[in-house]
Amino acid sequence: MSHEKYQSLIQALHDCMAACNHCFDACLMEDHVEVMRECIRLDRECADYCAYFEQALSKGTPFVSELANVCATICEACGNECKRHEHDHCQRCAEACFACADQCRNLVA
Amino acid sequence: MSHEKYQSLIQALHDCMAACNHCFDACLMEDHVEVMRECIRLDRECADYCAYFEQALSKGTPFVSELANVCATICEACGNECKRHEHDHCQRCAEACFACADQCRNLVA
Amino acid sequence: MSHEKYQSLIQALHDCMAACNHCFDACLMEDHVEVMRECIRLDRECADYCAYFEQALSKGTPFVSELANVCATICEACGNECKRHEHDHCQRCAEACFACADQCRNLVA
Amino acid sequence: MSHEKYQSLIQALHDCMAACNHCFDACLMEDHVEVMRECIRLDRECADYCAYFEQALSKGTPFVSELANVCATICEACGNECKRHEHDHCQRCAEACFACADQCRNLVA
Repeated sequence: MSHEKYQSLIQALHDCMAACNHCFDACLMEDHVEVMRECIRLDRECADYCAYFEQALSKGTPFVSELANVCATICEACGNECKRHEHDHCQRCAEACFACADQCRNLVA
Repeated sequence: MSHEKYQSLIQALHDCMAACNHCFDACLMEDHVEVMRECIRLDRECADYCAYFEQALSKGTPFVSELANVCATICEACGNECKRHEHDHCQRCAEACFACADQCRNLVA
Repeated sequence: MSHEKYQSLIQALHDCMAACNHCFDACLMEDHVEVMRECIRLDRECADYCAYFEQALSKGTPFVSELANVCATICEACGNECKRHEHDHCQRCAEACFACADQCRNLVA
Repeated sequence: MSHEKYQSLIQALHDCMAACNHCFDACLMEDHVEVMRECIRLDRECADYCAYFEQALSKGTPFVSELANVCATICEACGNECKRHEHDHCQRCAEACFACADQCRNLVA
């Protein structure tokens, strides 16, 4: 079953979605929100894509490689942006993004 | 933080989404798919709503009660349909639906 | 067919989703992004909910009233926030939100 | 603005999402639902992806090419499956899928 085979990726996608949404929420409350614009934008994009991909895996999508490939690109972009900010939520988000991107890259390789 | 306060509901929503998507996938492969129509339809509906609500909680939605109320209705409808079928995936899905509905009802109460 | 019966609501949901996403995008580029925090948050929430509800209608959901009821609440909250800002994208978004909320209220009534 | 530049693609995505969801709903009500399994599965996949991509465009995603590329693949797969069935809803869905795939291919080219 697809959802068992991909259990580890599903968990990584879920962790990444949660971290991105938490970072989105926390960035909007930061004092200097003006430097968090790109982080806010990419947090939403990455959370939405990971949520989509996680659902696709759990319903048995035949397009795993194609979706994983794009996911790695989006997670890396979000991780790179988050990594630049010192906030805990950004650093934790960057870790979750890179972990998810790694799993996607491994799957496609 | 919203996402910590609601950790248990987030997990229930996630389990319900995964169970519904697995049931959707498995129902489509059953020999007698003609008796699974309503199960397939409600599995999709419930999975989509739980996925939406889970994301909403993790991004700090101010509409928790309103969303939880509808979630309980959808999860119960899906659980009641799944419960009627003997397949393991349906029985497990019914359990996940009712567990999620309970958490939603408790939250609203 | 559900999707024909609700054609006007589907259009209103779609317009609202598009206006909210445009407003989200434009708010993030405003000079004074620090006063747009709540607008950004509600734009995302409202866009995501309208997108979800639009899909639900087009796939024949049996939960139209329940979903419409919550939709009206979210659209009104987003419209009220947008209305407070002078930016064109905010004013247009407020209009789309209130138009969508009206249709939802009429449906439930 | 992103959402204006891509107006024609946004419309094609929206039409495709609506056609796929209608086909999903109608397939589940067909007498011979057992031959519509793959159509039901791909209708959901294609509707969900088009809905995601449409939202991404309207919120100004920087990943247009990557998302369009995968979209073309999914729309073609769904269109090819729908084309095999004589039902009006399947034929109309195939048309919407191929029209959307064309726009995605043109964008990437």
